[in-house]
Amino acid sequence: VPSHSSKSAGQPVPYDSAEAKSEWSSTAQVSYLQDGIALTSLLHRCQRVAYLPRLLESCPADLASFIHPGPALVVLTPTVSKLYGARIASRFRDLSGSASSVYLELNCTEQSKDMSQAAKVCEAAVAMNLRRGGQIIGIGGGVCLDIVGLAASIYRRGVRHIKIPTTLIGLIDAGIGVKNGVNCLNKKSALGSFYPPEVTLIDRSFLQTLAPQHIRDGLAEALKMAVIRDAELFELIEASADAFTSERLQDQVGEVVIRRAISGMLAELSQNLYELDSGYCRAVDFGHTFSPHIEAATGYQTSHGRAVAIDMALSTVIAALLGHVSWSLCDRIVRLIDALGLPTAVLSPVDAVGLLASLDSVVAHRNGALNLVVPAGLGRVTFVQRAEISLGRIQYAKEYLETRHG
Amino acid sequence: VPSHSSKSAGQPVPYDSAEAKSEWSSTAQVSYLQDGIALTSLLHRCQRVAYLPRLLESCPADLASFIHPGPALVVLTPTVSKLYGARIASRFRDLSGSASSVYLELNCTEQSKDMSQAAKVCEAAVAMNLRRGGQIIGIGGGVCLDIVGLAASIYRRGVRHIKIPTTLIGLIDAGIGVKNGVNCLNKKSALGSFYPPEVTLIDRSFLQTLAPQHIRDGLAEALKMAVIRDAELFELIEASADAFTSERLQDQVGEVVIRRAISGMLAELSQNLYELDSGYCRAVDFGHTFSPHIEAATGYQTSHGRAVAIDMALSTVIAALLGHVSWSLCDRIVRLIDALGLPTAVLSPVDAVGLLASLDSVVAHRNGALNLVVPAGLGRVTFVQRAEISLGRIQYAKEYLETRHG
Repeated sequence: VPSHSSKSAGQPVPYDSAEAKSEWSSTAQVSYLQDGIALTSLLHRCQRVAYLPRLLESCPADLASFIHPGPALVVLTPTVSKLYGARIASRFRDLSGSASSVYLELNCTEQSKDMSQAAKVCEAAVAMNLRRGGQIIGIGGGVCLDIVGLAASIYRRGVRHIKIPTTLIGLIDAGIGVKNGVNCLNKKSALGSFYPPEVTLIDRSFLQTLAPQHIRDGLAEALKMAVIRDAELFELIEASADAFTSERLQDQVGEVVIRRAISGMLAELSQNLYELDSGYCRAVDFGHTFSPHIEAATGYQTSHGRAVAIDMALSTVIAALLGHVSWSLCDRIVRLIDALGLPTAVLSPVDAVGLLASLDSVVAHRNGALNLVVPAGLGRVTFVQRAEISLGRIQYAKEYLETRHG
Repeated sequence: VPSHSSKSAGQPVPYDSAEAKSEWSSTAQVSYLQDGIALTSLLHRCQRVAYLPRLLESCPADLASFIHPGPALVVLTPTVSKLYGARIASRFRDLSGSASSVYLELNCTEQSKDMSQAAKVCEAAVAMNLRRGGQIIGIGGGVCLDIVGLAASIYRRGVRHIKIPTTLIGLIDAGIGVKNGVNCLNKKSALGSFYPPEVTLIDRSFLQTLAPQHIRDGLAEALKMAVIRDAELFELIEASADAFTSERLQDQVGEVVIRRAISGMLAELSQNLYELDSGYCRAVDFGHTFSPHIEAATGYQTSHGRAVAIDMALSTVIAALLGHVSWSLCDRIVRLIDALGLPTAVLSPVDAVGLLASLDSVVAHRNGALNLVVPAGLGRVTFVQRAEISLGRIQYAKEYLETRHG
């Protein structure tokens, strides 16, 4: 047998710091064991979030530092295509020179977000013979970016991709993380991968054309970030709650809210980026325990942001019930959800029995522990386990939220 | 903005050596840039290849050190199910106690190896609500293991999987690497991921029931490894060429051939495991440049091993044409391919024009460079670029191989 290093499998692979640039890199090492061989690898990845105001308007050079020359597969939603298609095509044509990019309009909704949508993106890449060093650029909301992320992670076993979110939820949540996902057999985000975009380009000016209900959906995720780790952000949102319009998000307050939410999200994610720590205690799961069921049970008629809002309200009342927050802080949080134009009451056909039953699936996804995230003060959370959640407590929280204005 | 480390994005993430066990782990770090944020991560993965003779027969304790307690999704081919199904079920029942595993029979062939097959595995996992800490166990040949690897990499964004190859090609090639793949729009392995199995269990006794043509397919990959890096293995295969039966692979020669092929494969892969080095010069691609076209153009009626054999023969004649090997070494290699019962002549409907045209697709996959692997002596290779491959040279090589017995 040819000779190799005989280090034991338990030892770390040496990592050359010179390689740790923004380019992805890896090292690997073969180790001989008593009755086998171990192959240990280190994979270094870097993703960037770049603030690039008015990226469709500025001089081509700015965008050129992120978009590579050569053909790209550009995936966009029908809405984005209608509103921005011509400017996108013109901007990218300037950048890529004679290289012919392909534009794919993907009519995707949360309801239709499944593997067949990701397959459409992959098939377009195959059809244009997009090379391994090529790029897929997704321009749209969270659903579109999720699908593009998954497709990019499997086409040729992974090509570069760039995310350009056009919704608030995309800007501060779905577009900046490392996770993507599609639904399968009505189970939300059952399939996906951990696959960072090379860069996410943040341009608030897209929000100018965003419908008010989609602004509100995004505010739910911003509020989530405020409750779990950023009391100052909470106060800022509270002070501006009645004025979060698409125009307002263009001003200084909008900038601060968006930047703080993004910074907070990345800092939280970095603690367990690939979710390999077996605890699966993620503060960013606040609002994301009951919400998958609320979305699925209403046939995805309840938007992600609205489902997250209801979940945050439920979780906050449960926190008060269990003594983790005062009832006055509970009310303050629930009132702010209200003030942002988001729902707090559980809507039919979702009921307490269904909410309780849905926790089994969450427990499976979090590998045996519920880890319901609840506030434990403003900017702090704690994790509640399955044994503490009874049907009575869910029923109580549901009724509390239904009747508190009554 | 909450304070974080302000290291620049260019610096390496510190890696805690205590974490570098066989468990996967990761670290990540947020860095503030002038107009954005970088999220840099290191992902540590370990995969093992374990020699476990007669794993269906030995005492349960051996297997128990690899199979985790708790439910598994076991994916196997109809052939494996017929030959070994009862013993597999009994063995796994002993291991998992009362946990109920689910068995999925996957009728998969190279022709039908597409995303819908991977989706079937994922849907079975969703249907049984396989938890995140659960495991998918694939038992079968390369096609089955490829599909299982891809499914495991996307179900819940990645769960543990174990590969138990039952074919020679699975044992020494498809079952031990980090890559998986399925075909898309008749493009071979267009979709897939780099996702190591937790462990590959190597048990040669499965070969006792393998049909001779499948043994020959595997020998093509063993011969590839010999030509590219292991002259001693070449001589060993040469000395035993007429006696490689499924029985023979149970003896000492079989053990040495298999172990050397596996060691060689892992050593080669470790040099560029995730194929992030932009060169895409992989010695293990010997026999894998023309072969995807040969497989696809014959509607996958030409097995992978046979297509690899024809590709190796073509590439070796091209090497001789270009002066990288002597004609006598060329003949020696081609004769050994013959002696193993593998084809060397290009079969209709594949022709020189089609072979040449197919190289564009390879160039795209290798990001702009053909890197045709050709021998440069026994156990050494060199890489040939597109400009050196003319229709005339392919035509010459094709005719040489057709007529050399004439």
